[in-house]
Amino acid sequence: KIINIDSAAGVLTCQSGCVLETLDQTLEQHGLMMPLDMGSKGSCNIGGNVSTNAGGLRLLRYGSLHGTILGLELVQANGDILDLLSTLKKDNTGYHLKNLFIGSEGTLGMITAVAIQCPPFPKAVNLAFLGVNSFEKVIDTFQLAKSMVSEVLSATEMIDAKSIDACLEQFGFKRPVGNYPFYMLIETQGSHMAHDEEKLQNFLQKAIDCGIVEDGVVASEPSKIRQLWEIREKVPVAIPKMGYTLKYDVSLPLKYFYSVVPEIQNRIGDEGIAFGYGHVGDGNIHLNIVLPKFKQEVVDKIEPYVYEFVSKYKGSISAEHGVGFRKREYLHF
Amino acid sequence: KIINIDSAAGVLTCQSGCVLETLDQTLEQHGLMMPLDMGSKGSCNIGGNVSTNAGGLRLLRYGSLHGTILGLELVQANGDILDLLSTLKKDNTGYHLKNLFIGSEGTLGMITAVAIQCPPFPKAVNLAFLGVNSFEKVIDTFQLAKSMVSEVLSATEMIDAKSIDACLEQFGFKRPVGNYPFYMLIETQGSHMAHDEEKLQNFLQKAIDCGIVEDGVVASEPSKIRQLWEIREKVPVAIPKMGYTLKYDVSLPLKYFYSVVPEIQNRIGDEGIAFGYGHVGDGNIHLNIVLPKFKQEVVDKIEPYVYEFVSKYKGSISAEHGVGFRKREYLHF
Repeated sequence: KIINIDSAAGVLTCQSGCVLETLDQTLEQHGLMMPLDMGSKGSCNIGGNVSTNAGGLRLLRYGSLHGTILGLELVQANGDILDLLSTLKKDNTGYHLKNLFIGSEGTLGMITAVAIQCPPFPKAVNLAFLGVNSFEKVIDTFQLAKSMVSEVLSATEMIDAKSIDACLEQFGFKRPVGNYPFYMLIETQGSHMAHDEEKLQNFLQKAIDCGIVEDGVVASEPSKIRQLWEIREKVPVAIPKMGYTLKYDVSLPLKYFYSVVPEIQNRIGDEGIAFGYGHVGDGNIHLNIVLPKFKQEVVDKIEPYVYEFVSKYKGSISAEHGVGFRKREYLHF
Repeated sequence: KIINIDSAAGVLTCQSGCVLETLDQTLEQHGLMMPLDMGSKGSCNIGGNVSTNAGGLRLLRYGSLHGTILGLELVQANGDILDLLSTLKKDNTGYHLKNLFIGSEGTLGMITAVAIQCPPFPKAVNLAFLGVNSFEKVIDTFQLAKSMVSEVLSATEMIDAKSIDACLEQFGFKRPVGNYPFYMLIETQGSHMAHDEEKLQNFLQKAIDCGIVEDGVVASEPSKIRQLWEIREKVPVAIPKMGYTLKYDVSLPLKYFYSVVPEIQNRIGDEGIAFGYGHVGDGNIHLNIVLPKFKQEVVDKIEPYVYEFVSKYKGSISAEHGVGFRKREYLHF
């Protein structure tokens, strides 16, 4: 199913049915990694990732599929095969048709093969798990990380207290730091362990000294890093166990990033609980709302209001999970 | 002409007539830089860069415009304005039409405004200028740099001896290292001077120890870096001073990257001189051929043969400078 791996140029060519995690594991043996990563990596196919323009955890560092996909092979509705399977990094002959298919969710054709630019497999990975007192300080922490951890910064995630509590309760994880309204994961991926650790430690020291971070732990061991990431990755699995769950995947400009959560909470009062977590570095928040059980009146309070709210602040009502069938009628927002 | 700079999110929104270098200088005051850079930065406009999908010197590090352009405003031939000026990093509502306009050279509409993702302005820049004995060793050097300089690697350029000699002769530059068949520039951009210098020095030491690099100088001072880059940037200006010049901008898979130069030299014998230089990290070589004066018989030996050759090795006949009027009839290659 893998067609070719060019380790020198860092290009993978494969069929669309390959599972993301399998590709990542195979590439590791060639000193490379996939430029996208997400909680569902164990089951999702690369063809589906491209077709929905999946973003994931490390878009901040490695960029979107519009930047990393070099070529596609497609089958159109009439059966014609469109061979755009170039592996060149620079190619300006004709329109960049392949980009039209990225994120088109199969409406223009089926993706059958993919050529993708792969970054080097990181020799050093470090992860900080932080407790933060306000959303303003989450933004300050993100800014400081961009400045001090800079080129090795590979992910900046935010989880609110309600989301963490749901996850700890459902899965029995140990709380990594004390009780705070917000938690963050700041990850580095680089080539030099001592350099990266120094950058991350200096960042954490400064963040605590200037009062934007309350508490933090740093992990360098793969098993410890895995444990901390698991808390983040299990949040979207834990929340739906608590009741009837509505999920929204929206982008918002940074300063309005979290505002959608208290806004919806106010609107529904004690008829449900609003949770927020997501990729603060990419402006992409996952808003989840749990109702004790399905109740049309409460859903009516949320939809289309949530789309109007996102639209008012010039956000996107579909950040990384595509449009599908449910959001079609709201695309005009 | 600049519409907005969002330093927190790292997004510039501006009109299409802005000059690339002016944008870069303005962004520096906000701790940001333009993700693309090229020799013509002092005169080229961002609208033209997007319209031709310009690649430039640092695509290796910061990616193509398909990855960094977040939004465009366009005027279509019938006068309709298409407002795709989103500044969101993740947005999956509808087809990604803006990507169709990137590199379409005005054939679908005129770009009037641009929103672009900008990386942080680097606090540390270092540059190595190397002498290398063969093209095989140029590839080895590139691979070693990717592995040892890794996340701070911002450019890997190659210049052949004939190109350097032309440049030194025309502009009176001092030769930075001894006489070798190939020269390379390896640049780092990062956040921590001591870390970056250590990475680059370790790389150079190893490259010399294992015999892939013969000689090298490293510069950390801005004025010295400027001087070394000037040699590379003046190569395309120096060559045309030597006679009637044919220029080709092609992509080739890495192992065939330089082969087009001796191939064409063999074909034209002593009727002209073939020069090669370019972005080895992106597989993009600039092939220049100088004839003492225009001679149709010699041009006939080169065209369409050069396009056939590139096509045979699955390269692109237009890597980063677009198609324009002259290459239209060769697009089928």
